[in-house]
Amino acid sequence: MNEKNLRELLSRFRAGEVSEDQAVATLKNISLTAVEDLGFASIDHQRELRQGFPEVVYAAGKTKEQLRAILRSLYERSGGNLIATRASLEQYEFVRAELPMMSYDPTARMIYLDRDSTVERDEERMILVVSAGTSDMPVAEEARLTAHLWGNHVKTCYDCGVAGIHRLLNHLDDIQKANVLIVVAGMEGALASVVGGLTARPVIAVPTSVGYGASFHGLAALLAMLNSCASGVAVVNIDNGFGAGVMASKINSVRN
Amino acid sequence: MNEKNLRELLSRFRAGEVSEDQAVATLKNISLTAVEDLGFASIDHQRELRQGFPEVVYAAGKTKEQLRAILRSLYERSGGNLIATRASLEQYEFVRAELPMMSYDPTARMIYLDRDSTVERDEERMILVVSAGTSDMPVAEEARLTAHLWGNHVKTCYDCGVAGIHRLLNHLDDIQKANVLIVVAGMEGALASVVGGLTARPVIAVPTSVGYGASFHGLAALLAMLNSCASGVAVVNIDNGFGAGVMASKINSVRN
Amino acid sequence: MNEKNLRELLSRFRAGEVSEDQAVATLKNISLTAVEDLGFASIDHQRELRQGFPEVVYAAGKTKEQLRAILRSLYERSGGNLIATRASLEQYEFVRAELPMMSYDPTARMIYLDRDSTVERDEERMILVVSAGTSDMPVAEEARLTAHLWGNHVKTCYDCGVAGIHRLLNHLDDIQKANVLIVVAGMEGALASVVGGLTARPVIAVPTSVGYGASFHGLAALLAMLNSCASGVAVVNIDNGFGAGVMASKINSVRN
Amino acid sequence: MNEKNLRELLSRFRAGEVSEDQAVATLKNISLTAVEDLGFASIDHQRELRQGFPEVVYAAGKTKEQLRAILRSLYERSGGNLIATRASLEQYEFVRAELPMMSYDPTARMIYLDRDSTVERDEERMILVVSAGTSDMPVAEEARLTAHLWGNHVKTCYDCGVAGIHRLLNHLDDIQKANVLIVVAGMEGALASVVGGLTARPVIAVPTSVGYGASFHGLAALLAMLNSCASGVAVVNIDNGFGAGVMASKINSVRN
Amino acid sequence: MNEKNLRELLSRFRAGEVSEDQAVATLKNISLTAVEDLGFASIDHQRELRQGFPEVVYAAGKTKEQLRAILRSLYERSGGNLIATRASLEQYEFVRAELPMMSYDPTARMIYLDRDSTVERDEERMILVVSAGTSDMPVAEEARLTAHLWGNHVKTCYDCGVAGIHRLLNHLDDIQKANVLIVVAGMEGALASVVGGLTARPVIAVPTSVGYGASFHGLAALLAMLNSCASGVAVVNIDNGFGAGVMASKINSVRN
Amino acid sequence: MNEKNLRELLSRFRAGEVSEDQAVATLKNISLTAVEDLGFASIDHQRELRQGFPEVVYAAGKTKEQLRAILRSLYERSGGNLIATRASLEQYEFVRAELPMMSYDPTARMIYLDRDSTVERDEERMILVVSAGTSDMPVAEEARLTAHLWGNHVKTCYDCGVAGIHRLLNHLDDIQKANVLIVVAGMEGALASVVGGLTARPVIAVPTSVGYGASFHGLAALLAMLNSCASGVAVVNIDNGFGAGVMASKINSVRN
Amino acid sequence: MNEKNLRELLSRFRAGEVSEDQAVATLKNISLTAVEDLGFASIDHQRELRQGFPEVVYAAGKTKEQLRAILRSLYERSGGNLIATRASLEQYEFVRAELPMMSYDPTARMIYLDRDSTVERDEERMILVVSAGTSDMPVAEEARLTAHLWGNHVKTCYDCGVAGIHRLLNHLDDIQKANVLIVVAGMEGALASVVGGLTARPVIAVPTSVGYGASFHGLAALLAMLNSCASGVAVVNIDNGFGAGVMASKINSVRN
Amino acid sequence: MNEKNLRELLSRFRAGEVSEDQAVATLKNISLTAVEDLGFASIDHQRELRQGFPEVVYAAGKTKEQLRAILRSLYERSGGNLIATRASLEQYEFVRAELPMMSYDPTARMIYLDRDSTVERDEERMILVVSAGTSDMPVAEEARLTAHLWGNHVKTCYDCGVAGIHRLLNHLDDIQKANVLIVVAGMEGALASVVGGLTARPVIAVPTSVGYGASFHGLAALLAMLNSCASGVAVVNIDNGFGAGVMASKINSVRN
Repeated sequence: MNEKNLRELLSRFRAGEVSEDQAVATLKNISLTAVEDLGFASIDHQRELRQGFPEVVYAAGKTKEQLRAILRSLYERSGGNLIATRASLEQYEFVRAELPMMSYDPTARMIYLDRDSTVERDEERMILVVSAGTSDMPVAEEARLTAHLWGNHVKTCYDCGVAGIHRLLNHLDDIQKANVLIVVAGMEGALASVVGGLTARPVIAVPTSVGYGASFHGLAALLAMLNSCASGVAVVNIDNGFGAGVMASKINSVRN
Repeated sequence: MNEKNLRELLSRFRAGEVSEDQAVATLKNISLTAVEDLGFASIDHQRELRQGFPEVVYAAGKTKEQLRAILRSLYERSGGNLIATRASLEQYEFVRAELPMMSYDPTARMIYLDRDSTVERDEERMILVVSAGTSDMPVAEEARLTAHLWGNHVKTCYDCGVAGIHRLLNHLDDIQKANVLIVVAGMEGALASVVGGLTARPVIAVPTSVGYGASFHGLAALLAMLNSCASGVAVVNIDNGFGAGVMASKINSVRN
Repeated sequence: MNEKNLRELLSRFRAGEVSEDQAVATLKNISLTAVEDLGFASIDHQRELRQGFPEVVYAAGKTKEQLRAILRSLYERSGGNLIATRASLEQYEFVRAELPMMSYDPTARMIYLDRDSTVERDEERMILVVSAGTSDMPVAEEARLTAHLWGNHVKTCYDCGVAGIHRLLNHLDDIQKANVLIVVAGMEGALASVVGGLTARPVIAVPTSVGYGASFHGLAALLAMLNSCASGVAVVNIDNGFGAGVMASKINSVRN
Repeated sequence: MNEKNLRELLSRFRAGEVSEDQAVATLKNISLTAVEDLGFASIDHQRELRQGFPEVVYAAGKTKEQLRAILRSLYERSGGNLIATRASLEQYEFVRAELPMMSYDPTARMIYLDRDSTVERDEERMILVVSAGTSDMPVAEEARLTAHLWGNHVKTCYDCGVAGIHRLLNHLDDIQKANVLIVVAGMEGALASVVGGLTARPVIAVPTSVGYGASFHGLAALLAMLNSCASGVAVVNIDNGFGAGVMASKINSVRN
Repeated sequence: MNEKNLRELLSRFRAGEVSEDQAVATLKNISLTAVEDLGFASIDHQRELRQGFPEVVYAAGKTKEQLRAILRSLYERSGGNLIATRASLEQYEFVRAELPMMSYDPTARMIYLDRDSTVERDEERMILVVSAGTSDMPVAEEARLTAHLWGNHVKTCYDCGVAGIHRLLNHLDDIQKANVLIVVAGMEGALASVVGGLTARPVIAVPTSVGYGASFHGLAALLAMLNSCASGVAVVNIDNGFGAGVMASKINSVRN
Repeated sequence: MNEKNLRELLSRFRAGEVSEDQAVATLKNISLTAVEDLGFASIDHQRELRQGFPEVVYAAGKTKEQLRAILRSLYERSGGNLIATRASLEQYEFVRAELPMMSYDPTARMIYLDRDSTVERDEERMILVVSAGTSDMPVAEEARLTAHLWGNHVKTCYDCGVAGIHRLLNHLDDIQKANVLIVVAGMEGALASVVGGLTARPVIAVPTSVGYGASFHGLAALLAMLNSCASGVAVVNIDNGFGAGVMASKINSVRN
Repeated sequence: MNEKNLRELLSRFRAGEVSEDQAVATLKNISLTAVEDLGFASIDHQRELRQGFPEVVYAAGKTKEQLRAILRSLYERSGGNLIATRASLEQYEFVRAELPMMSYDPTARMIYLDRDSTVERDEERMILVVSAGTSDMPVAEEARLTAHLWGNHVKTCYDCGVAGIHRLLNHLDDIQKANVLIVVAGMEGALASVVGGLTARPVIAVPTSVGYGASFHGLAALLAMLNSCASGVAVVNIDNGFGAGVMASKINSVRN
Repeated sequence: MNEKNLRELLSRFRAGEVSEDQAVATLKNISLTAVEDLGFASIDHQRELRQGFPEVVYAAGKTKEQLRAILRSLYERSGGNLIATRASLEQYEFVRAELPMMSYDPTARMIYLDRDSTVERDEERMILVVSAGTSDMPVAEEARLTAHLWGNHVKTCYDCGVAGIHRLLNHLDDIQKANVLIVVAGMEGALASVVGGLTARPVIAVPTSVGYGASFHGLAALLAMLNSCASGVAVVNIDNGFGAGVMASKINSVRN
């Protein structure tokens, strides 16, 4: 039942063509589907919240034709930013032939459209992405670019693993200025605890699959981060830079 | 080197008793320890940030004498709230004999002192604790009481597991009003994904060890939450209600 | 919004006290909560389906006072059978003092009330519970009693492990007559595959934690059952006799 | 010993050519092999049950020549449907050159022959396949096509993950009409619990290997489904769409 | 159908009271149960093989009344040795009150009856039990006593862990004379590989749960033994001294 | 010190050129290396035992040049059978160009030389290789060919998985005649327990990596076999057909 | 063959009572056992090295009578220090009644005798034990006391977890002076990497079972330490303070 | 603040342009970054220690252009040895075109420059690398070459697995002369315990991923080594030959 049907029912009820019992029965049967057509609150609310938020596509496992069709549709239907995560260069080149306005970040493996040129990024609410080694960069960049496209002011501090603690301490200023921190580390994942001890702000920890042997594809870093002795640290899935970027963006826009 | 030593050095340098080279050499050798004596910025900054935040003790594994000594010291030294987590009733009764102002919450297993009576809890920044089953209550209550003692306005929505989705949907209003959400669930941990899909706010997921057999003491819920298909969900350790309460509090106080 | 509010709104709309736009706006805001007040179909439907089905309480982790209060309430409110699973003898004795009509099965560890005396058990739809060893009996009996209280005709075939295949083959007749089969086994869990190969009916496999060493508390049996080379085998959690009993009951009552 | 031998023995016994002791000795030695030649009940019974059921081949790991030979033999010997699961397009093209009546479903990766055109599919016994994301489609389609070739009326509800619960609730009607449900989900596998809470019918849960990082190739979804807080949920192996299709078919044809 | 029924059928068939078709039909329906009554070959064969072999009861998890009843029955019915494994001293004392001929080995935790006094133990077919540390003795003794009661000549070589390889080499003579070897070790389980390299005879490896931390209750030793670089090593379950004793006994009595 | 040196020492001692103390000192210092040159007993003993046993090379990970060089050397030096396990067809073709007497079994992936034509295989000591499915054949054939080249009489019974128990029971005769049994199975590995219950002879169980999902590359079958409820079953590493063949051969040649 | 036998053989050889061939044959058969009787070098060498090193007993799992007997024997036979690890207070009190010279450290759970009063501890070769939290103290103290009784100069730096990095940096002086470092940490085990980055000396990392939930009894810390991004870190078993103390002592006494 | 700034501040202070309070305030604010500019002790100290130590690059995952650029820079900036670990032949050939002085070891997969020709290797401080099988050679060679380039005298003892203990005992002399030992083994990893029992010196154990099936990519060897019954054994990550080489080098250069 959409709004037109609803108005029709009300008219016919007022006109006496539909009895009260009939109207009640019909209205009681409004299915959850109908509720959505009427503007299901959580949906509307979400849409409202989403203003200025990117539409997101998970490119991995999609054919280049599928990906291009989805991006074209989103491009035409939406006025905001677009993101396709885990996209290959080959996928991008196919997409670009038809959608030349799309950009590609090969490190973050993201196809994106950054057309929200009027965003005023709030430097007071800076998100800092800290990563341990150069091999962690793809995940860190995925987090950074996601948070950037969500409208945040983002800074980075890469290659700051704990084995050379002074490299990290050199960035103490940014660490203590940041409103939200994303810590990206593989191997033993110790960076999350150390950074967590240097700030009073929330830290999103992203374990990466960087390592070999007993890193078990990121399990070692994941367990380490979950057991962090620093409070104010929460963890997302292994290699989930995108998820960390979204979480940090959501934290950065809580009411205040 | 403390401030007195530093002033002495400067005096002797001005008096010509210490050459410039000697002064430079000494100042270059300021150890990190000395830096702290001079007022190591990150420490001071943290202290400043901690104003109004509780002092926290992990009671498990401490004797009742140790616990009482620590709480007495904190009580006398600090003006804010106090928390001892994972405390037994027996520990509390021993503590109370000497520190009668301490309270105890047997479900959350916390000894606490809530003397920060002037806190104005901001209802606009409500934290909602959602839990799946009655067995998850100790962890949920630990999160709730922690966030409360941190000065937040906290509401709860317990026994809202996904097997009866309507029970959860009955609380849609609170879910959508909350500024930050804590979701506590054992068994299959599905609640985090469902709640994550109903809000645009950040969700802290707490897996619990509730369950048996293939729950493997909370592992099933932990993995489920890390793999949540909803974005904006981050995870803390199994049964770590305290950690979730702190994380939510930190999120709730980011700059704005 | 309940039915009374709805009728009131319609009256006021017909009376012109509420404009069409106002009525539309109000009706569009019917929350999911309201939908339930109007008689949310899935709920009603479920209630209808539940006729004759037991009310179930998970006794483990509840105090005897809590358990007794819940059972008393269910006893007074419901006219059907009652089940409290994982109940201790001590819990039962406390409950019985006030609710003497309750029975207890010490092997299945269930408190129950079987007052549905008019059930005609359909022998054509026999559920067969097969178990491997005597140590698996508590789980097997939990499944049997659950299916019995759900109104099924249940037979058992215990101590039929595959190491003596002839013991199992002696029950071939029952195995092939059964409408649904529950197979309960610990250690290597091979029984599920063997039984699955002897029947064309659905088999519910229940791994148990019986075993030691590399059984890893039921993991060996669980993995074996999930990898069964027989088709028509599905698995429930380790030691979950109750869940198997419910699943078999639901299968036994699909439309026909 | 086949029936001819048996009749011969009896004739010779009656004719006095074989003494009673000899006959008893021979008959006591009827081996299990002989029993089968005589028509071993369980086998016959199974054959009878199998009427109208497809013959099934697991194509993975077989050469295209082997696969073609088996399918040719089954085609000539059997009058019913045929299925080859986990078959590649290359295998199909090789098979089709000789067996042009064979069809191929590239999503379900199945070669099949659907020659049972007279099946009357019972709409009252509808099987519903619900899946979480588009990446779960190969497994979901394998389940759907299997149940279809087994003679069932099958409907689908794809891309209904729990992170957008309204998408699922839009299909509430089908969910509640279905006689048996198959739920296919990777990542956190929460869909099984939510669907299980919306129906009184049996649910077969299929974890998929969709996901990355801490999904550990489907382990997260598997554990979640085994720990489902909804009753009436049983689980098959990771990615085992075929097994779910068979299990649902067997449930759908229990006695009634 | 037992032999008497069979003879009756044959008589009536010869007497013409039963037609050939009826006789065939009846004989074709001989169930597997009947086959056993007629003397199901594998059963008889096993019984024959079992002459002189002990009857075995798994005492763990049985009440002392159950255990005594089973042992009494076995004592009266069987003429050979008896074994109850994993029996407590308390169980033994209860049993002994009624069955004073039973013995108890507190290290091996076995109640046993060794009444087969005429056994001539073949020294040429010596079984050697080698163990790593004193903590492995309960498992080693369970293996030794089992093999002894099976009628073997058994020797032992305890506390011969690989960290002091000379202790092991001091027993080289026995190691090379043994017909079958049982190697019992916890912690890193290296002993199985070293012994396997010093003999051309089959080695049964028994991992024990001795150790702590990353021994994970015997998993480390289990994996080590399964990966032994020595050929001619096979493994039984963690702490399964009884199983190793039986396996060695069976090896020791293969045809020759 | 080799034999020549030893004789020299003795001569010079007898000639008085070396005092008793010097001789004792020298002989006490005989290093373990020297012991071997003298004919280190365990080594000699092993060599003696090895008469008629194949020399074995693990081909995987070796270059074809390395493999050919090793096989050429073994061919020239040894008079018995030769085995190269896990060899590719490509490796074989390279080897054959120079060593045309070598054979290749593509299923067992073994290059071998069977020149021990005078072996009289003892039918009374038959080794039976039982396997569950056709996918297990490479491992089963590796076991069979290994045991054959070791001089045993070997029979096979393939595709006898427990889901169709009658297929296995059809081979009951061979199962009960076999002196040693090798059971090869992937997926749930139940075959080992069933076969173990049908024989009194030792069973070597070989889990295979056949399966998918929760088979975890053979872990499910491995755990099942280790937990076998049948006694007289011991287990080798996943896919280790060669190891099972050697173990069975060693069992088959214990003293008697 | 002992020295007396050897001299006898040589005498008889010189006297012509034994031919050269006989002498050679006998000497070739010198078993490894005999080698030891002659004074097997590695054994002697080890004894020599052990001078001044403690004799060690693992008390856990021993009765108090057994423990006392072993300690009495060691006390009488050895002149050096004694250690019994994992000893309870109850064990100690029983031992002390007869051996009053024994001491007990309740935190390290060690009974010990420190009678090597002449040790000159080399301050240049200081061993530093760093631990993360107060709960790690039993393991840290076991390491400290072990290294002390081995004759080392040992210092400690406790409660220096990485969440408050300044606490650790306050001890930078000791960290950089230490010759060998032992790092003891549970939870996420990050301390090993941070300390490893602050020193050029070898670091022995000891994971502890301190933590809960996803620490999995020390697994998280173990994996973290094995994956340390700092070089010069090696790991011992979970909670193995004794092993770390021995390893550090051995490192501290390498040749120089 | 660098040294120039510091001198300027002191001049202005002496000149009265800056008050004592201002100077103290400024000096108190010396950040950790500034400390480094002034010559942060731990850094300098580390640099000093590093004299003669190689600069190390992890080549895996770097493009050949990146690798060449880094090596060129290190070559020009540093006067010592250079190491690039896990480098492919292709990477090397690209590098060599521009940097012809670089060498390559294909087994150890290392590009290196050994220009420290004046090193006097101390034979008294020999490092011995022991490995189990030929497949372990790449890891063993990585350890050997690393320790060699660090300036050590290194010997090797390869293919000495425990299944043929005499091969190892033949090297007893080297084992007992070595100052530090590195033991490299896959499969069951037993070699570490055996070698640990033959020396009083520290042993660094390196598990390798050599093996199949239940070796789980090195997990079996890792767990075995962590549980070694020999004391004085510590473990590095699976396949981490480089880490073992560094650890041994650091042990070999502790103070003395």
